[in-house]
Amino acid sequence: MRKVYVAGIGATKIREHWEVSLRELLVKAAQKAIEDSNIEKKKIQAAFIGNMSSGVLQGQEHLGSLFATWMGIPGIAASKVEAACASGGAAFHSAYLAVASGMYDCVIALGVEKMSDALTGDVTAALIMADDQDYVAFTGASFVGLNALVYRAYMKKYGAKQEDIALFAVHDHKYAVNNELAQFRREFSLEDVLKSPLIADPIRLLECAPTGDGAAAVVLCSEEYLKEANNEVKIEVAASTLATDILSLHDRDDLTTLQATVRAAEKAYKMAKISPSDVDVLEVHDAFTILGVIHLEDLGFAKKGEGWKLVKEGEIELGGKIPTNLMGGLKARGHPVGATGIYQIYDAVTQLKGEAGKNQVDDAEVALAQNVGGVGGTVSINIFRRVR
Amino acid sequence: MRKVYVAGIGATKIREHWEVSLRELLVKAAQKAIEDSNIEKKKIQAAFIGNMSSGVLQGQEHLGSLFATWMGIPGIAASKVEAACASGGAAFHSAYLAVASGMYDCVIALGVEKMSDALTGDVTAALIMADDQDYVAFTGASFVGLNALVYRAYMKKYGAKQEDIALFAVHDHKYAVNNELAQFRREFSLEDVLKSPLIADPIRLLECAPTGDGAAAVVLCSEEYLKEANNEVKIEVAASTLATDILSLHDRDDLTTLQATVRAAEKAYKMAKISPSDVDVLEVHDAFTILGVIHLEDLGFAKKGEGWKLVKEGEIELGGKIPTNLMGGLKARGHPVGATGIYQIYDAVTQLKGEAGKNQVDDAEVALAQNVGGVGGTVSINIFRRVR
Repeated sequence: MRKVYVAGIGATKIREHWEVSLRELLVKAAQKAIEDSNIEKKKIQAAFIGNMSSGVLQGQEHLGSLFATWMGIPGIAASKVEAACASGGAAFHSAYLAVASGMYDCVIALGVEKMSDALTGDVTAALIMADDQDYVAFTGASFVGLNALVYRAYMKKYGAKQEDIALFAVHDHKYAVNNELAQFRREFSLEDVLKSPLIADPIRLLECAPTGDGAAAVVLCSEEYLKEANNEVKIEVAASTLATDILSLHDRDDLTTLQATVRAAEKAYKMAKISPSDVDVLEVHDAFTILGVIHLEDLGFAKKGEGWKLVKEGEIELGGKIPTNLMGGLKARGHPVGATGIYQIYDAVTQLKGEAGKNQVDDAEVALAQNVGGVGGTVSINIFRRVR
Repeated sequence: MRKVYVAGIGATKIREHWEVSLRELLVKAAQKAIEDSNIEKKKIQAAFIGNMSSGVLQGQEHLGSLFATWMGIPGIAASKVEAACASGGAAFHSAYLAVASGMYDCVIALGVEKMSDALTGDVTAALIMADDQDYVAFTGASFVGLNALVYRAYMKKYGAKQEDIALFAVHDHKYAVNNELAQFRREFSLEDVLKSPLIADPIRLLECAPTGDGAAAVVLCSEEYLKEANNEVKIEVAASTLATDILSLHDRDDLTTLQATVRAAEKAYKMAKISPSDVDVLEVHDAFTILGVIHLEDLGFAKKGEGWKLVKEGEIELGGKIPTNLMGGLKARGHPVGATGIYQIYDAVTQLKGEAGKNQVDDAEVALAQNVGGVGGTVSINIFRRVR
């Protein structure tokens, strides 16, 4: 399998883009990524577009041809990749395989979601399609409700307290202040979080990632193309994995772990030939605070039941043991679902390029991005390494 | 790039499966393909599922994890691939790249669509999402209407007559009689077709592919795994390509050709190191009779404006110059949109395996399957070769 490199990244600000259409978001992100890559647009051979709900929300499928058309490169191979909120990570994985195979030398992985002006559907109804329609959604369950079950199970099993878990949201907002692309650039205190409205007991409003619109893009290429681009910092995809788990919580043995994370991580660490202690920068999929805590454990940074201690003890801060979500994470950077996996890669690569400004991890060399679909039905893990 | 083989194929009958759910269709097709492959289910490492409208019609996304769960193999990498009616072909292409890359040794490509019991949407509205929602669908255009424009433009430009073009439907139905999986196993005369109700002038009802439900699956593997499976007939993927064109007709120079077909075909013939005359069995995406005719031209089997002559002169029949759609094509085998690309591969491979019964092409060695998304916004081409 040949090596694959990240040649460029680009993203739009995440917010309610009422005046910008889905196709425009895609094109804006792609233009930035291509400019960043030093590779000419016409050299892009294929596009893989992560998106969950364009059909339900915008009445628009066939994003591959739509993107190729509006980008001015009709002819390229292009398709949409969907794996619920892990659509971005799954699209990146397919893009990775395309270059690794040797068939394509230069491809673009994109993620896009437009949630604020839904033409043809309802956002809450769209999101629950990530779980089982016939056995879960049909009962009236919502995504925050399912995660509340996980939250309760975790507190019961490990005796953890909400004030410790909820700190994850405080953390994310603190760092988003310095991220120009973030949706919510303001700090919140723990008190703010715990006093915010109850959404699904015990989850509070400020423990939930917001809905928003955005698109992000990554240009991937072969070694030969990378040489030609001659970027200052060279970044290699050290691992790209994708794993599933049983779709719904009611069929699982344990609500307090995501086995898809454990599986994808095991493969990814092996592929990159590293262990968790080699990771300098971490991006985890904290759609809800409890998930952030669980991910730290499932990824091997804390023992089961002790992920919250890393947060409480400042170990996920800049300068801590495992700097996490330093650009704001899902909670504060934002979570346009199908785009999130690519935003995480954008944030991880920004750190490796040394372009994270006030949030920069000194001399970051290895970054890991974890993207989750549904309540862990799919997990994508991508590891990046700065080439010395 | 390492070689990729087809180890097994499976499909359900296409019809209105009111009593069978989308997940059950997927599992039934996969079980058949795995059984046919002589490879154990647990050796499947990844799944790529072609589907267009499960979100809009069934309120169900995240088919990757859904499939892995119900198939009893949670853990595998899995995602949905969408490119409108070319979703099946696009999913196969991603599955091909997965094995070609060397990362996966055994994967399954699936296609599924359930159109007859739409829980949450309308089929006609779902299908037009393959074109531009903001500039085409929004005007009230339907898919058959767009193809009617192509039909008129073709007849005007080349002086072709409807009675010649409509013969494509007569052809498909004649062969579907012998295909147990086909949706409509009965013959129609040219008179029947031309007297059937007018849907969008000049397109008649019996010139349109029907809606239906179905799933099909293909197991792809590496040379090593193929040896282990020890199948009687060995089939190689000689080429797999995907190309786009400008999404909508109003932006194109010429309505009578699909440039995505021309692009994908050029690459595919080069990759397989063959020319059109080497193809023994052809599957084209005849969603409407006029498309069947145009595809024969764009694929290089007839000069522009003369595709209908091949049909009229019997050259697409069993024993003709280029036997086409011998299992009934989209018109009579059926067209469950996101599954169609995989059904075409199923039919092509069935011929190479010598299992097409009364419709068998003697000693078929090379088969080409062409799958189209939208009105040619995306085209997938896959070429298969029997290994001697």
